[in-house]
Amino acid sequence: MADVMSNLEPDDRVALLEELPGHLTQRVLNSMSSEDQVEVKKLLGYPEESIGRLMTTNYVRIKKDWTVERSLEHIRQYGHSAETVNVIYVVDEQERLIDDLRINQFILSNPTQLIQELMDHQFTALSAFEDQEEAVRMFSKYDRIALPVVDSDGILVGIVTVDDIIDVAEEETTEDMQLMAGMNALERVYSETSIFMMVRKRIGWLLILFLGQMLTVTAMAAYNSMLAAAAMLAFFIPMIISSGGNSGSQAATLIIRALSTDDITLIDWKRVFTRELLSGAILGVMVGLMGFGITYAWIELQPGDIGLSFMQALTVGCSLFGVILFGNLSGSMLPFIMSKVGLDPAVTSAPFVATLVDVTGIIIYFSIAMFLLRGLIS
Amino acid sequence: MADVMSNLEPDDRVALLEELPGHLTQRVLNSMSSEDQVEVKKLLGYPEESIGRLMTTNYVRIKKDWTVERSLEHIRQYGHSAETVNVIYVVDEQERLIDDLRINQFILSNPTQLIQELMDHQFTALSAFEDQEEAVRMFSKYDRIALPVVDSDGILVGIVTVDDIIDVAEEETTEDMQLMAGMNALERVYSETSIFMMVRKRIGWLLILFLGQMLTVTAMAAYNSMLAAAAMLAFFIPMIISSGGNSGSQAATLIIRALSTDDITLIDWKRVFTRELLSGAILGVMVGLMGFGITYAWIELQPGDIGLSFMQALTVGCSLFGVILFGNLSGSMLPFIMSKVGLDPAVTSAPFVATLVDVTGIIIYFSIAMFLLRGLIS
Repeated sequence: MADVMSNLEPDDRVALLEELPGHLTQRVLNSMSSEDQVEVKKLLGYPEESIGRLMTTNYVRIKKDWTVERSLEHIRQYGHSAETVNVIYVVDEQERLIDDLRINQFILSNPTQLIQELMDHQFTALSAFEDQEEAVRMFSKYDRIALPVVDSDGILVGIVTVDDIIDVAEEETTEDMQLMAGMNALERVYSETSIFMMVRKRIGWLLILFLGQMLTVTAMAAYNSMLAAAAMLAFFIPMIISSGGNSGSQAATLIIRALSTDDITLIDWKRVFTRELLSGAILGVMVGLMGFGITYAWIELQPGDIGLSFMQALTVGCSLFGVILFGNLSGSMLPFIMSKVGLDPAVTSAPFVATLVDVTGIIIYFSIAMFLLRGLIS
Repeated sequence: MADVMSNLEPDDRVALLEELPGHLTQRVLNSMSSEDQVEVKKLLGYPEESIGRLMTTNYVRIKKDWTVERSLEHIRQYGHSAETVNVIYVVDEQERLIDDLRINQFILSNPTQLIQELMDHQFTALSAFEDQEEAVRMFSKYDRIALPVVDSDGILVGIVTVDDIIDVAEEETTEDMQLMAGMNALERVYSETSIFMMVRKRIGWLLILFLGQMLTVTAMAAYNSMLAAAAMLAFFIPMIISSGGNSGSQAATLIIRALSTDDITLIDWKRVFTRELLSGAILGVMVGLMGFGITYAWIELQPGDIGLSFMQALTVGCSLFGVILFGNLSGSMLPFIMSKVGLDPAVTSAPFVATLVDVTGIIIYFSIAMFLLRGLIS
């Protein structure tokens, strides 16, 4: 069979494979080189990033009415090419998966025992059409070396081993981090990505964020007369909005990561809101007090007393409190909102939160300035 | 032995263990509950985050002059409590590790063969005193289910299994992400961290970054007379410095992650510099052109023609080019510098780069404005 197959073009192989019953398809896949397997699995219709693309078909399967001795004989015969003989799969006459047994159980059992006596009919299987992320989650949950993969009829079509999962998990984390940095995820590693591709992955978000920043221009223009009357007001804007962005980026990262490691789930949003309201307020008070003191000292040290030190410093301090609290709340709530509308929470990038906080920060700052400095600046 | 031990206090056990030869220590450890093992391993001096703290002592070890049959008998007898029988370790008379054999080799071999005939004397072992990060790297490199752990004399003291490594890798990624977001890494997961602890982990960087931002205040104050003459200059500052921060945060994340996944190493810094110089220039031109156009249109749409539209828009466009290029270069080079001075590259947080770019961006913007708008603003 292997010889027949290797003389066919991949397209013809798929045509042939589609005619074969499921378990024969797997035997044919087994006989191919791993490069050919990749090609054929793609053509068999497993979507990109699906478990079907990740699995290997090199595993050992046995029947429940075999003895331990016969099974070990079978493993001895077919185990050489298997990815792992650590777990052996039991299938029924239709090649449906009915149990998985650890190799320990064979070694530790009497050779004349029947496989069905060892079976507990409890197993965890992955679906070939599911996303590879699901496989990562299952491995992290069940602490297994390998997990079986079944199709929609429950027929065993492959296995996924934990060493492949480590690579998938690493790639996913990289994608998450790139999203969180305000860019689209690269398809290959950094060193293998062309400059052209790199620019393509980065420019979209840079332009979107730039357009978002035009709101800061418009916001500041709205306070033109205040700025014209007291240029000093402008000095503190980058400091204030950046402080809000910093607290937002901390909060967003904490929540995105907690969501992606299943430490918290969507239903926890209220608890997170309360926590972040409180921690944002504490952080806001601390930075706000320090900001008040340093700003007061800074203004006093400037040549020429303009007599506004205290009120200007108070404006800065209050604004710092406001933006840090707001940054914290938007940074922690946006990942939930993203998730709710079906987006990856990691889209809540630090730059995204920072842009939102920049606009809001300007409004907060000038509103407080207008209130506290009214009458003091002409 | 186990009975004797279980009647002793942990401190006494350690005293006793320290008197014992290495291999006996391990046997004693094996006989303890896993809670007791944790306690004793701590007391035996394996540092926190070391492989010694991660390893389990529940493994099966055999001698090279045993037959396959005797070995299987031994595995049958002692394998029940072992974390894995997928890999069996061969030790010499001094309990030094001399080889590791996969269980497949036993099952696939003739029962009368001697273990030494199966041996290839090639194995990879971890050191008990090394950092757990090293274990993650080794597992990712060697695709193994378990790796043996030896002490400084080469004596087998435990094994680490891949499922524990997944958890360690996940924790390390979380720590990296938290550093990259401009905060100290949490010791526990988000949901288990108290608000007080959360504030402690976040406030340090927030205050440091705030102090860094005082440089933006000082930088802006230096251009006080220009600002007083043309308040409009101030409108574009948040937009320009944020664009630089965005490009810097993209670059920093790309490089930090590429370094931590061993995609690139420290010696690649020159190649990275060239790449990021080029991609930064391309991104800068694209955002700069768009910035010029939009700013020009935006000023034209404002009520009251001030006749500065073109030059002001040109100033904004050129500044965008400058800050994006500078952000890209500092974001990509800082992780290398951090690494060089012995810090974690992830300390190059997005907020850290953003603060650096904020200060530089203000200087770039006002310098260009001074050059292009000289004489146009009084």
